Amino acid sequence: MGLVAFTEIGSVLMMRSSSNRLSGSAMNDIGVLRNAAIVFDEQIRWVGSMDDYVAGRTAGQWSNVSEISLKGHCVMPGFVDSHTHIVFAGSRANEYGRRLQGVSYQQIASEGGGILSTMRAVRDSSVEELADMGIRYALSAMKYGTTTIEVKSGYGLSVASELAQLRAIRLVREQVPMRVMSTFLGAHDIPPEYRDNRAGYIDVLCEEMLPIIAEEGLADFCDVFTDTGYYTIAETEYILGKAADYGLRSKVHADELSYVGAAECAVRIGAISADHLLCISEQGMKNMASSVTVGTLLPGTAYNLRLPYAPARAMIEAGMTVALATDCNPGSCLSENMQMMISLACTNMRMTVEEALAASTINGAAALGLTDKGQLSPGKDADMIIMSNEEYANIAYHFGVNHIEQVWIKGKKQ
Amino acid sequence: MGLVAFTEIGSVLMMRSSSNRLSGSAMNDIGVLRNAAIVFDEQIRWVGSMDDYVAGRTAGQWSNVSEISLKGHCVMPGFVDSHTHIVFAGSRANEYGRRLQGVSYQQIASEGGGILSTMRAVRDSSVEELADMGIRYALSAMKYGTTTIEVKSGYGLSVASELAQLRAIRLVREQVPMRVMSTFLGAHDIPPEYRDNRAGYIDVLCEEMLPIIAEEGLADFCDVFTDTGYYTIAETEYILGKAADYGLRSKVHADELSYVGAAECAVRIGAISADHLLCISEQGMKNMASSVTVGTLLPGTAYNLRLPYAPARAMIEAGMTVALATDCNPGSCLSENMQMMISLACTNMRMTVEEALAASTINGAAALGLTDKGQLSPGKDADMIIMSNEEYANIAYHFGVNHIEQVWIKGKKQ
Repeated sequence: MGLVAFTEIGSVLMMRSSSNRLSGSAMNDIGVLRNAAIVFDEQIRWVGSMDDYVAGRTAGQWSNVSEISLKGHCVMPGFVDSHTHIVFAGSRANEYGRRLQGVSYQQIASEGGGILSTMRAVRDSSVEELADMGIRYALSAMKYGTTTIEVKSGYGLSVASELAQLRAIRLVREQVPMRVMSTFLGAHDIPPEYRDNRAGYIDVLCEEMLPIIAEEGLADFCDVFTDTGYYTIAETEYILGKAADYGLRSKVHADELSYVGAAECAVRIGAISADHLLCISEQGMKNMASSVTVGTLLPGTAYNLRLPYAPARAMIEAGMTVALATDCNPGSCLSENMQMMISLACTNMRMTVEEALAASTINGAAALGLTDKGQLSPGKDADMIIMSNEEYANIAYHFGVNHIEQVWIKGKKQ
Repeated sequence: MGLVAFTEIGSVLMMRSSSNRLSGSAMNDIGVLRNAAIVFDEQIRWVGSMDDYVAGRTAGQWSNVSEISLKGHCVMPGFVDSHTHIVFAGSRANEYGRRLQGVSYQQIASEGGGILSTMRAVRDSSVEELADMGIRYALSAMKYGTTTIEVKSGYGLSVASELAQLRAIRLVREQVPMRVMSTFLGAHDIPPEYRDNRAGYIDVLCEEMLPIIAEEGLADFCDVFTDTGYYTIAETEYILGKAADYGLRSKVHADELSYVGAAECAVRIGAISADHLLCISEQGMKNMASSVTVGTLLPGTAYNLRLPYAPARAMIEAGMTVALATDCNPGSCLSENMQMMISLACTNMRMTVEEALAASTINGAAALGLTDKGQLSPGKDADMIIMSNEEYANIAYHFGVNHIEQVWIKGKKQ
């Protein structure tokens, strides 16, 4: 693969950090270069000013590059969406419409709707059908700038069906150009068959599902929904401990609907991320700030469920590493567009545009333990998105429209 | 132009009303047909069930139509965006970014930013430059489903510059396939030159601008920003009375920032619409409900300025005719995407999907006095948008992405 050079680039956001994350006030240090150049093949080889690039070229340094002028454009790392549930089945559009008409969730659930309808649809689907849905959403997300995406299981809630979801995620990974990371979320809810036997399901999860998942290498992470009415702190620690024994790193759906100390728990067990955090405590923020655990905020879900947003400003002031993700799922937030999340983050969580962009790139990569994504510096993967104009603030200021004109993954235009 | 038939259409939203508007609870009566057909040339000729279409065809009725199958798609009237300011100049993206960083509006204004920066940029632009900006936004809006768009002047605030904006709107009308309606908003603000001589500016507006606008046929409507610190009720009535003498119908920016009785005023003078209405009174709603005046809600502006939303539910319960529009403008809401407004309307104003769609089509047309737009029934213009799937609730449920796959205007695919 030959070298390519983007030249005369209006602006470049480098997002560089030796620790592969930007935390607290440093989330504003997104490394803006104006009139710049980037030389790359599958990886970034060089980033710098146009003057330095031309000097290098004059000195014979870039004799074999093909140049593409990006005057009036902005280049940034592709978005890393570190929290999605895009491998699902069925549609709940009609149910959504009825809820807006005033039909209660209880009524819809009594008719077989709600999360159980997604569970049944997933159980009734083949691996290929599940993968088709995931591929459709992944490719749509890519059009809006996502170049790395995490996908969770958690709608099957049975051995066969959780494995089917994870195998579908593997198919998605094989069939889209993006990097796809896989998370086992068997502990998304207690399946109806085990309502009166939680311990029984946890046993199935740890003794039947995890060994197969580990053996087949089906997941990078294990995740637990830790909240009132879902999994307790003790159950979370037990499940994630077992998963760690099988080599899966921990993630936690933490303190979304109520405060249960899930953020503190995530820090204690060294989770790579704690996600949602609408109800996080001050202590939780403090603990997270001095830990490796990334705080992943999902403003689309708060928007869609009309919940108070996570306290992003307090988190950043506490020094936390904050990431943004879509939570794309059929129940509480059906959107795969990271630009929408950036708009919500700036408007409704009062993040700066710089913070929201760092949260959507380098910090998303940190939430997935990826050191080769989310930054534009030598040695990192050449995953780049090109805006239709050079003022990156437009991505939040001019909201509701797609600003991404080109998507490049590992140096190849998509 | 030959007849075309859309056949096997998954769902059609007809939005039919003999009064050319849907008010109050009737906003939910959007006329859904499943497995339907539409026959059209420049206008809609026939709409009905697939069975009836096939029966007609068997009887020799549609011998010369070219058929296009739209199985699995939804067809609805193109969106009518009845309130925009897309003919402007300059960018305030950087200013927006700095405000999120904590720089005060006062500080930005003292550096020459804010609305005055847009005014200066407009005054420094040629008619062609202004039209170029308008065309860019209109064509982008069309990609998201808008087939009729209103555009206001109001950033020039001088005789030469208001006329330049209106002439630019005329150029936009000539160069885009959409229907473009023009509104004179010389009373958007008091220009800095007249801060101490409001009456002087109102004289210029009524005695110098209006006669030329009327003579050249540059505007369909006259609009006034009626609010605390802007134009008073008495000034509004005076200006719109003069405009009416010149044949311009009235619109009012009403009760946006504070309650001043502008909705009541709009009803009193028979305005075609009162827009914004964040601070409308109960009396105002009652008066509007028994009037011709459409209430146009602009949720993107409330979102972007973090203001409490207009009380859409109370308005619909009062029986008002509610329309939705973007307010697309560089200061308080830079978005030309009606689907984004529908998402905000459903999520943050608790409108049903049906109400939001009626508000974006037939009622948008009512806010512009257009009886040939916003409905799919015989004799109406064949302005249709085609969704990528047949469940129209997806337009709000699956938010943040563009669901419009095809746009047809006056029977021609764009």
